[in-house]
Amino acid sequence: MDQENKTAPIIGIVMGSKSDWPVMQAAAAILDEFGIPYEAKVVSAHRTPDLLFDYASTARQRGLSAVIAGAGGAAHLPGMLAAKTTVPVLGVPVPSKYLKGMDSLLSIVQMPKGIPVATFAIGEAGAANAALFAVAMISAGNPNYAKSSTEQLTAYRQRQHDMVMEMSLEPENAE
Amino acid sequence: MDQENKTAPIIGIVMGSKSDWPVMQAAAAILDEFGIPYEAKVVSAHRTPDLLFDYASTARQRGLSAVIAGAGGAAHLPGMLAAKTTVPVLGVPVPSKYLKGMDSLLSIVQMPKGIPVATFAIGEAGAANAALFAVAMISAGNPNYAKSSTEQLTAYRQRQHDMVMEMSLEPENAE
Amino acid sequence: MDQENKTAPIIGIVMGSKSDWPVMQAAAAILDEFGIPYEAKVVSAHRTPDLLFDYASTARQRGLSAVIAGAGGAAHLPGMLAAKTTVPVLGVPVPSKYLKGMDSLLSIVQMPKGIPVATFAIGEAGAANAALFAVAMISAGNPNYAKSSTEQLTAYRQRQHDMVMEMSLEPENAE
Amino acid sequence: MDQENKTAPIIGIVMGSKSDWPVMQAAAAILDEFGIPYEAKVVSAHRTPDLLFDYASTARQRGLSAVIAGAGGAAHLPGMLAAKTTVPVLGVPVPSKYLKGMDSLLSIVQMPKGIPVATFAIGEAGAANAALFAVAMISAGNPNYAKSSTEQLTAYRQRQHDMVMEMSLEPENAE
Amino acid sequence: MDQENKTAPIIGIVMGSKSDWPVMQAAAAILDEFGIPYEAKVVSAHRTPDLLFDYASTARQRGLSAVIAGAGGAAHLPGMLAAKTTVPVLGVPVPSKYLKGMDSLLSIVQMPKGIPVATFAIGEAGAANAALFAVAMISAGNPNYAKSSTEQLTAYRQRQHDMVMEMSLEPENAE
Amino acid sequence: MDQENKTAPIIGIVMGSKSDWPVMQAAAAILDEFGIPYEAKVVSAHRTPDLLFDYASTARQRGLSAVIAGAGGAAHLPGMLAAKTTVPVLGVPVPSKYLKGMDSLLSIVQMPKGIPVATFAIGEAGAANAALFAVAMISAGNPNYAKSSTEQLTAYRQRQHDMVMEMSLEPENAE
Amino acid sequence: MDQENKTAPIIGIVMGSKSDWPVMQAAAAILDEFGIPYEAKVVSAHRTPDLLFDYASTARQRGLSAVIAGAGGAAHLPGMLAAKTTVPVLGVPVPSKYLKGMDSLLSIVQMPKGIPVATFAIGEAGAANAALFAVAMISAGNPNYAKSSTEQLTAYRQRQHDMVMEMSLEPENAE
Amino acid sequence: MDQENKTAPIIGIVMGSKSDWPVMQAAAAILDEFGIPYEAKVVSAHRTPDLLFDYASTARQRGLSAVIAGAGGAAHLPGMLAAKTTVPVLGVPVPSKYLKGMDSLLSIVQMPKGIPVATFAIGEAGAANAALFAVAMISAGNPNYAKSSTEQLTAYRQRQHDMVMEMSLEPENAE
Repeated sequence: MDQENKTAPIIGIVMGSKSDWPVMQAAAAILDEFGIPYEAKVVSAHRTPDLLFDYASTARQRGLSAVIAGAGGAAHLPGMLAAKTTVPVLGVPVPSKYLKGMDSLLSIVQMPKGIPVATFAIGEAGAANAALFAVAMISAGNPNYAKSSTEQLTAYRQRQHDMVMEMSLEPENAE
Repeated sequence: MDQENKTAPIIGIVMGSKSDWPVMQAAAAILDEFGIPYEAKVVSAHRTPDLLFDYASTARQRGLSAVIAGAGGAAHLPGMLAAKTTVPVLGVPVPSKYLKGMDSLLSIVQMPKGIPVATFAIGEAGAANAALFAVAMISAGNPNYAKSSTEQLTAYRQRQHDMVMEMSLEPENAE
Repeated sequence: MDQENKTAPIIGIVMGSKSDWPVMQAAAAILDEFGIPYEAKVVSAHRTPDLLFDYASTARQRGLSAVIAGAGGAAHLPGMLAAKTTVPVLGVPVPSKYLKGMDSLLSIVQMPKGIPVATFAIGEAGAANAALFAVAMISAGNPNYAKSSTEQLTAYRQRQHDMVMEMSLEPENAE
Repeated sequence: MDQENKTAPIIGIVMGSKSDWPVMQAAAAILDEFGIPYEAKVVSAHRTPDLLFDYASTARQRGLSAVIAGAGGAAHLPGMLAAKTTVPVLGVPVPSKYLKGMDSLLSIVQMPKGIPVATFAIGEAGAANAALFAVAMISAGNPNYAKSSTEQLTAYRQRQHDMVMEMSLEPENAE
Repeated sequence: MDQENKTAPIIGIVMGSKSDWPVMQAAAAILDEFGIPYEAKVVSAHRTPDLLFDYASTARQRGLSAVIAGAGGAAHLPGMLAAKTTVPVLGVPVPSKYLKGMDSLLSIVQMPKGIPVATFAIGEAGAANAALFAVAMISAGNPNYAKSSTEQLTAYRQRQHDMVMEMSLEPENAE
Repeated sequence: MDQENKTAPIIGIVMGSKSDWPVMQAAAAILDEFGIPYEAKVVSAHRTPDLLFDYASTARQRGLSAVIAGAGGAAHLPGMLAAKTTVPVLGVPVPSKYLKGMDSLLSIVQMPKGIPVATFAIGEAGAANAALFAVAMISAGNPNYAKSSTEQLTAYRQRQHDMVMEMSLEPENAE
Repeated sequence: MDQENKTAPIIGIVMGSKSDWPVMQAAAAILDEFGIPYEAKVVSAHRTPDLLFDYASTARQRGLSAVIAGAGGAAHLPGMLAAKTTVPVLGVPVPSKYLKGMDSLLSIVQMPKGIPVATFAIGEAGAANAALFAVAMISAGNPNYAKSSTEQLTAYRQRQHDMVMEMSLEPENAE
Repeated sequence: MDQENKTAPIIGIVMGSKSDWPVMQAAAAILDEFGIPYEAKVVSAHRTPDLLFDYASTARQRGLSAVIAGAGGAAHLPGMLAAKTTVPVLGVPVPSKYLKGMDSLLSIVQMPKGIPVATFAIGEAGAANAALFAVAMISAGNPNYAKSSTEQLTAYRQRQHDMVMEMSLEPENAE
């Protein structure tokens, strides 16, 4: 994890199991790219519920601006974090072995009125997008990172745009 | 709620919202019929997470033999109760407004290895069956109720059997 | 629409059709309750694509901190708004006539890497939660609203908590 | 199968085909770990219906406290066992070749009112959890195993908890 | 039930509950129309498993050429009948309250290799078609009914054909 | 049916049953609005297969530029028409009683390589869109209608656009 | 194809493409085992619709007692055969590349009232079961094969039964 | 890409990412086979929305008769192109990593009334069929290509037909 941030983390990345890390590191990679300090931890809703409560309860005072939470199957981690903090929680449905993340998606997105979890796509794309969304939130709300984040977001989008513009479908490149 | 039991409850029925009661009272009706003392409460995983933790943490010492938990949508109540107690948790997927309980079912049944939730059918049938399953557990494990429960279960089954045997499909009854 | 805000809107609520308003006004109701100035408009991705582009392109300079976008079926509005602005977009799947919003949900949440849309539950609960999430973002990022928003959010949660604590399952209330 | 139990089995593990064994041995492994004597057999609802009836009819008198039944596709084994015994039946949906266990899950969990089957997750996690649930039932109801089971369950949970606490996301471990 | 057949029934119509009769009488109506003697009974796989076994075991000797079995939810009746007789079993998925018969369909059609159940559409159309299929089987195999059945089937098809040919979409008829 | 066209029809609207007409007349309404001559008929793939073959085989010589075919459930009409003619076939999934058109959609859209059916949304919206698509095809390919069709399409879009622009969300209009 | 039958085929096995043969030969293998003469052909509903019509129209006069039809995706072959013959049609959903046969299943089983297709499980199990069902039909209706078929069916079931009874879950065999 | 067309393209093939090319080149292969000049480009709805608008806005004046658009997941490309041009848009659902294209299909086909997208099957078959459909449209509407296209389509169908007629299921060819 390229997490050599000396400064205090402002984003928390949590996941239910170490086996979720290959998916969730797509979030870490974005934060690294944007220079946003973060922490990444395994916090299991079911195996370490007290840790989950502690994590959520102290998130605000520890200075976290958002928590990105990935979980699979009966994915309760994002929703339970959200139940214990008013820090925005971003949920990432981790693909499950048999149902391919449809169970994870519904377990995360179908929250009842009152406790929101912002949900993103199943898998790596969702993890990356949760991080980009967190950056956009910071660019609006965190004076230390706002200016650089906004500029970086704009630059990131431009690079995406340029990459598409340069895509060629010549036979030697296809597939 | 016909819950005039003087004795201490041995089954807890909990649900995420009062709107789940029309479904969950099918569980209460079975326990009433079998004379099993129970309590019924609204405990919301998302709106009252601390209450959830208290409820689960004290379930064993308060003498509960099982907790029947109903929830809909991103249904986290049964799984989070199970995370905080070794008292068996029986989950009932409450039908949701748009996805008809498919989200509730997957959120409850797809628990990860380590923390089981025994899951029953979507809706009233599942609530009744969770209660019948709790009775069967008690008939095995609670000396105060074992004998009467077993006899009652057998009688209940016999009544079901007899009801089917007496069903007639005469035109005047059909539909 | 109780939108008597003299001050400039900081949240935009947009939807693909006026028929989405019964769902989306659950978002407006939350913002009204929290005293957050907002605007609510019909912007159709398919029937008024230029309006969509204009809306998104000018969102930041017009001072919007977030856009809450509701759409049903092949729900392209949230994703296309997100493609044209770095202002955070919150997507609400509006239930569709035949597939009950499963199509809306997948069309909104399954965004590719690079362009995030924060997605919430199908229907009214999702609309309300998108608004609550927007409030949480503002409480972090907007100095004019931060203090009051945070206090209000905490109070809102407390009220939710209290409501659950006071729920009674007496027979006369049930159903 | 590490089933060198001299004492009479108190849990039955049954499955529709030997090809279900790779999934169902996750249940056996838990019972081995907890020192619970069990038996494991192939009993096919469709190919050996009389064996199924015999198995269920004699389960109680043979001293079984619970039957863990795994089946895939049109999975009738758990429900039909439950129809023939009041011993609690725990159902495990075995993943099917094409529908990945969604058919197995619905065939097991959607039991009608009157005959409960406690259902667990699709695949190995569900098999392990069914066994853990059986242990919890025994810890409540079987005086010979109650004390040790309860202690072991608590220890098992503690080990799970500790494992999570020690999980590290260092790059060299990730993936 | 217009079942005034003096002669012995050659088709059995069974269903898990009397509440399935509104669906299953579409099968009876076809058999009435074709003059095929049948019997109609409630046989519950879960509440009267012994009756199910008796019914299936004696089906051949009682002269049944086919059994039409309707069931909903975890629909085990058709498959368990098929497990106990080599008389062809025709399965009708009865629509379920929440999942609209998708659970019934998968529980019936996904039988493992070795024990076939011929499955038809969810609901009334499936019940009628199961009966028409039974008629086609009889027209091939029962010398007492073969000639008249074949002629009647041909006539039935002709009537269907003619009905379509005469359908008019004039405004006064539409809707 | 406002089909008072003296000129020969250039679009065929066919459907499997008169009960599909409430859905399919949304196609007819568009063609009426655009002044495109059409015919509307019931042609059942299953009850009148020869009529289906005749209809498709003669479609080109009778001057049809496109066939709009609506069907529900196991919806074979569009695909079988396409198998018998090179006139473009536009398929409309008619909502089915229990599965709400998901079966209709998959039966129509999942055609194998070689025989295309252009598929539109489930229900009335799909029927209207199939007709609009047919108009767009005609505006490209039929010299008699090209100019007026193109102008009309542009005008239709403008009206849609204007309607959205004029939508107001005032409380008195909402809901 | 072990189809060395000198006698005229009484079962037809048809499939939409040669790529369906690995699935459909499970049907052929059963018929070979039972000594039932059959023919196996590729008949594409979409690429050779006239062949389909010819095949169905002549099925009865050519002496076929049943047609087993396998198809994938928008699977129209079984239903269109059934539309053109009163010979019983048995449908086998061939697994499709992306939707794993759920599209095939719904396209085959959801036939409208009037034209039945007896449907079996997705894939090889369904193909084998369709053949076993055809054998059961023949054992009832074809005097040349009735006696031997019935005896063979009983023997087949006995072998299945014995195979299960002999299954052992010893560690060396497991997996 | 065998796209050595000197003449101006009359069909546009666009896709959201170069990774869609292996699927979409099935469309290009058909157009190559029929000698229809086309262009193939990457146009991302989300990463290059302005390019998308430009592409659609100029499609008609650049002489395109149809646009074939492939996209996966939250697939907005076809619908947004259709929103900006009256040139017919043919949508191809590209299979997605976890949901296998079910998300892509619903995102494309469920367009609201007013803006049609003609949708084809998930994956390569759909891409090829979109191209064949475009050829059929051209054979009706483009005087330069009409005659040859119609003849070629008829020949293509004949070749498909012949290929099926020659398929043999001899054991040495099977599988």
